[in-house]
Amino acid sequence: MIRFTNDYSEGAHPSILAAIAAANCEGNPGYSTDPHAARARALIQSAIGRPDADVHFLVGGTQTNATAIAAFLRPYEAVIAASSGHICVHETGAVEATGHKCVACPAENGKLTPAAVRAAVAAHPDEHMVKPRMVYISQTTEIGTVYTLAELEELRKVCDACGLYLYLDGARLAAGLAAGGASLADIARLCDAFYIGGTKNAALFGEALVILNAALKPDFRYNIKQRGGMLAKGFLLGIQFEQLFADGTGAFYTSLAAHANAMALRLKEGIAALGYPFACDSVTNQQFPILPDEVVEALAPDFGFEFSAKPDAHHTCIRLVTSWATPEENVDAFLAALRDVS
Amino acid sequence: MIRFTNDYSEGAHPSILAAIAAANCEGNPGYSTDPHAARARALIQSAIGRPDADVHFLVGGTQTNATAIAAFLRPYEAVIAASSGHICVHETGAVEATGHKCVACPAENGKLTPAAVRAAVAAHPDEHMVKPRMVYISQTTEIGTVYTLAELEELRKVCDACGLYLYLDGARLAAGLAAGGASLADIARLCDAFYIGGTKNAALFGEALVILNAALKPDFRYNIKQRGGMLAKGFLLGIQFEQLFADGTGAFYTSLAAHANAMALRLKEGIAALGYPFACDSVTNQQFPILPDEVVEALAPDFGFEFSAKPDAHHTCIRLVTSWATPEENVDAFLAALRDVS
Amino acid sequence: MIRFTNDYSEGAHPSILAAIAAANCEGNPGYSTDPHAARARALIQSAIGRPDADVHFLVGGTQTNATAIAAFLRPYEAVIAASSGHICVHETGAVEATGHKCVACPAENGKLTPAAVRAAVAAHPDEHMVKPRMVYISQTTEIGTVYTLAELEELRKVCDACGLYLYLDGARLAAGLAAGGASLADIARLCDAFYIGGTKNAALFGEALVILNAALKPDFRYNIKQRGGMLAKGFLLGIQFEQLFADGTGAFYTSLAAHANAMALRLKEGIAALGYPFACDSVTNQQFPILPDEVVEALAPDFGFEFSAKPDAHHTCIRLVTSWATPEENVDAFLAALRDVS
Amino acid sequence: MIRFTNDYSEGAHPSILAAIAAANCEGNPGYSTDPHAARARALIQSAIGRPDADVHFLVGGTQTNATAIAAFLRPYEAVIAASSGHICVHETGAVEATGHKCVACPAENGKLTPAAVRAAVAAHPDEHMVKPRMVYISQTTEIGTVYTLAELEELRKVCDACGLYLYLDGARLAAGLAAGGASLADIARLCDAFYIGGTKNAALFGEALVILNAALKPDFRYNIKQRGGMLAKGFLLGIQFEQLFADGTGAFYTSLAAHANAMALRLKEGIAALGYPFACDSVTNQQFPILPDEVVEALAPDFGFEFSAKPDAHHTCIRLVTSWATPEENVDAFLAALRDVS
Repeated sequence: MIRFTNDYSEGAHPSILAAIAAANCEGNPGYSTDPHAARARALIQSAIGRPDADVHFLVGGTQTNATAIAAFLRPYEAVIAASSGHICVHETGAVEATGHKCVACPAENGKLTPAAVRAAVAAHPDEHMVKPRMVYISQTTEIGTVYTLAELEELRKVCDACGLYLYLDGARLAAGLAAGGASLADIARLCDAFYIGGTKNAALFGEALVILNAALKPDFRYNIKQRGGMLAKGFLLGIQFEQLFADGTGAFYTSLAAHANAMALRLKEGIAALGYPFACDSVTNQQFPILPDEVVEALAPDFGFEFSAKPDAHHTCIRLVTSWATPEENVDAFLAALRDVS
Repeated sequence: MIRFTNDYSEGAHPSILAAIAAANCEGNPGYSTDPHAARARALIQSAIGRPDADVHFLVGGTQTNATAIAAFLRPYEAVIAASSGHICVHETGAVEATGHKCVACPAENGKLTPAAVRAAVAAHPDEHMVKPRMVYISQTTEIGTVYTLAELEELRKVCDACGLYLYLDGARLAAGLAAGGASLADIARLCDAFYIGGTKNAALFGEALVILNAALKPDFRYNIKQRGGMLAKGFLLGIQFEQLFADGTGAFYTSLAAHANAMALRLKEGIAALGYPFACDSVTNQQFPILPDEVVEALAPDFGFEFSAKPDAHHTCIRLVTSWATPEENVDAFLAALRDVS
Repeated sequence: MIRFTNDYSEGAHPSILAAIAAANCEGNPGYSTDPHAARARALIQSAIGRPDADVHFLVGGTQTNATAIAAFLRPYEAVIAASSGHICVHETGAVEATGHKCVACPAENGKLTPAAVRAAVAAHPDEHMVKPRMVYISQTTEIGTVYTLAELEELRKVCDACGLYLYLDGARLAAGLAAGGASLADIARLCDAFYIGGTKNAALFGEALVILNAALKPDFRYNIKQRGGMLAKGFLLGIQFEQLFADGTGAFYTSLAAHANAMALRLKEGIAALGYPFACDSVTNQQFPILPDEVVEALAPDFGFEFSAKPDAHHTCIRLVTSWATPEENVDAFLAALRDVS
Repeated sequence: MIRFTNDYSEGAHPSILAAIAAANCEGNPGYSTDPHAARARALIQSAIGRPDADVHFLVGGTQTNATAIAAFLRPYEAVIAASSGHICVHETGAVEATGHKCVACPAENGKLTPAAVRAAVAAHPDEHMVKPRMVYISQTTEIGTVYTLAELEELRKVCDACGLYLYLDGARLAAGLAAGGASLADIARLCDAFYIGGTKNAALFGEALVILNAALKPDFRYNIKQRGGMLAKGFLLGIQFEQLFADGTGAFYTSLAAHANAMALRLKEGIAALGYPFACDSVTNQQFPILPDEVVEALAPDFGFEFSAKPDAHHTCIRLVTSWATPEENVDAFLAALRDVS
């Protein structure tokens, strides 16, 4: 079976596996207090142009989001997100489990708009309601779209006007960088905090949370430990981000996603050429074609993908995901099969 | 520097690294729904003699404890633990962060006694107090002692009498098995749930939570996801436990700790032979010798260890920890150095 | 100033004040273990025709909702409610503060529909999302509409089909009863739990939570105490509900709301007669007329009311609320003033 | 039956009942935004000599403690308290339910000592443990003892040295004032926040939380609402504290407890004169005599009291509590009966 199921089906880039093996018997201190973590922090600070940033390594995205949001907000404060946002839908209420409401807003093309943020703030005027205090966005979004620099700057403005933190979930940040979205430096300039996703971009696991706003920095490691995110062998996280950012620029990190995006766009073009529509105009490694049910059925035995929606009685929207490891021949095999059954 | 700092300073047993590398490009489904996880579950069920057991893989110990306790208890229910228990002291209030009180009891030789459990239950008679509902024990304990089968059976009896679940934190379970503590099958027979520690016994990371009590099984994966413990590349956990329990008996898993224990006992004998006392009579891979301050100072540049306590103005209790990877020459180097400075 | 601001502006019905004064020096045990509470429980059991019901007295509505929801749900379970539902909007995230997500659904005329419930369940198919487990409705709704018996029966059916509890927030239950909504007996038959509102219907304070589903009954008092809702002088709650349900039928309790409804409908007719539209067709003690801004401005110095919405640049929707204590002359004074400024 | 069961068996001082009745139909705005609440706030500010204090009215003590602690602490921060402290024992884990650990310390004569606070801080040095951030004390303590001004100043010093807030639970503050403990002005000077108990000193219900530390003031009403403590008819709280502090000095408030203390000391002297010992040397309205079991048995049919402890096989420690409403003849009746059965 050829899998387009997700971008976490493979292990890690070979250079990462090699680095982990090489360090296996070094004997490192625990809990990310080791030299690898220190170097990885410095490399990320360099890549984002912010030597003052605090960088923390966590294992997964839901953990990172819940830990950061719970740490940054007071109990009655809420986070504004697109209703399609990962924290609103796909984290089993992890944010609510820390006591905070997610205020869900309608999204445009998967993206939260300044107008939606302003409306959410206006709808919560007093102490009988939660107090919106943070904006959560995903780059790329859950449907593969990308915030431009201009869009991010507009969101920053509304955050400043309304007293909101801006937090960016970068589970697929590399795909956004590769697709020409806001740069690492711009994100670091405009966000109060964000995370750089490793799991979905060639690490075994790991996310690097970057905190820019000095008010949010104190005691953050207590929060990581309390929420169960402090990896004993934290040097494994350091080693992986050392590899991903070895160049100190993010170029290698981005290049892995550039491949994934290229494979996805090859899928997109091929599918479009056969006349099939898409649920949205994704420019990154997730594509959402809408296919006749019998076509989906015919493809299912040989190709892995997720069912995304049922737009009408005879069609299915599926999700195809590519990664750093997707071979071009897999894409071509899919397109050939699609051609055959169309 | 030679480290006796902890048992999570090295990466993983070479066979585990090899297995991860071998599976790198297989393309596995996410979230521990993969064939490796399935096989690892079956191997563990075999090793504990309980094909009916639910087995879940999580990344770390604090995460496992907090997730299990939060899942098993109703909001006003509490967990009874030794005051030296990991959840009471070293998890930054992770259990309390899920809303539950830890009722701390005096320990004997690091172990919780049936009498202490009964006293804790008696002290909470009505709805103005939390309701004790679970007993938490660590095998091995935080000071390296081990519950015997007889002791575990006595705890089970008091749990039955008082309507309490029995939960065993097996972060160092292998050390307990190797030291002749209650067997895997006995633990599975006597506990409602327990976890088999991987992180401190040759895995890169990972703990296998085993749920025996059918009432505690439903929907457990929701809890893992909500608490941030659902690893995207869950196959990494499956692969590791497949290796650790490849024999379906726990023999290999235990053998790794047998080495660690042997190295620790070699340390213990050597230190005792020099006339130094110990804070407790540990039979496993943590040893707590009490040394004159100047001796500790002399050893510190060349050997890594933690400071455990300050029993008087001129002495320090240090913690020495060995692992599956501790070379015998490291032990001998320490003993030689200690002899030199004594 | 004549107030139509809310239904909790006055103290209590004179008979309640008298009963509290009469019992002042009786010397009652605390925490609702007193004879008044026992009698009030029996009277409510009689009025709803369910001698098996558990009845608990709490001080306020937000407290009652949060306590019940937190007690009834497991950590990853969620409550479905209309997006206009009190728990979704007006309780400062009290439900989320206990760890549970509110799944907000579009409402029809302020009411949750079976179709919306079914859609919410369908949208949460697996462990990556919260698990809907309870339906929350308000009787009367937040905009004064009322669930009929038939509507409640349909909701019960969908709850049975989907494995959901049905919980009814009866802050304004009396107004619903007086307006011909489902009866107390029907509500007790169809809901797993509901509360009978005292605060907004002539008590100083107090809500009577009624639990019908036996699975939800055990240990509920622990939850009340833990959430801060266990009133030390609980006999004050018993005394008040003894008065409200002295007849053992709910007739007196309902009659107080019948007056409030009558006053509201008198307002409604008078305002409609002047040609003004309403935001919704409320049949109970809250009315939402839409008035020209200059009319609202002219009325504001002499009459108290809340601003509800701004439907366009020149009109304001205001909320007028009546209570058991609203004198007819206040209504007529408002209508006269409205006529004057129209 | 003559009750010495607790100090919340009676309703309210007649002047309070009268004031509530007088204001019954005034028509006040909700949620303590009314003129009574405003006046009560000003009167309390005057009585404590701190016009800058924020004063909030809540219904009960557990609610007040949990709301304040959850509002003041960040998620990983903990509160230090005597192991006999109300939050540690008698609030069904209400503090833990908000996510915070109570660090229990040994008490001396019911009181927390500076040495115990320092030891608790020293035992929590890093991010693997909770971070102590607040000291909780009760005035009077749970066994009727009283912090002197000097003791309070010592606690303030250790709090300053260790970066801790000082919070005082004043459920029985009036008894402490009447017994010569630290004055209202001193408490306001030395604490970051404290509450003035109404429930146990002649109010129907109600506690006035006083926040002195400006850093703890913002948005506090959000916390009250979220934790279910925002009373709809908040004017009832304002009216009661208006009465209790009508003089703007606390003299009337203290005088009510002076009577309770006098009655308790009359009990104490009478019991001591018969040769019975006490579990502790309480100087306020709770007394803990140790009596032979047969004496306790003989008194039980005619007198209400709680069983406190069983110091040996033949004796029982009972708790006798007096209040503002305890008639001297009740005390004398008890002493006479005790004499008879001794």
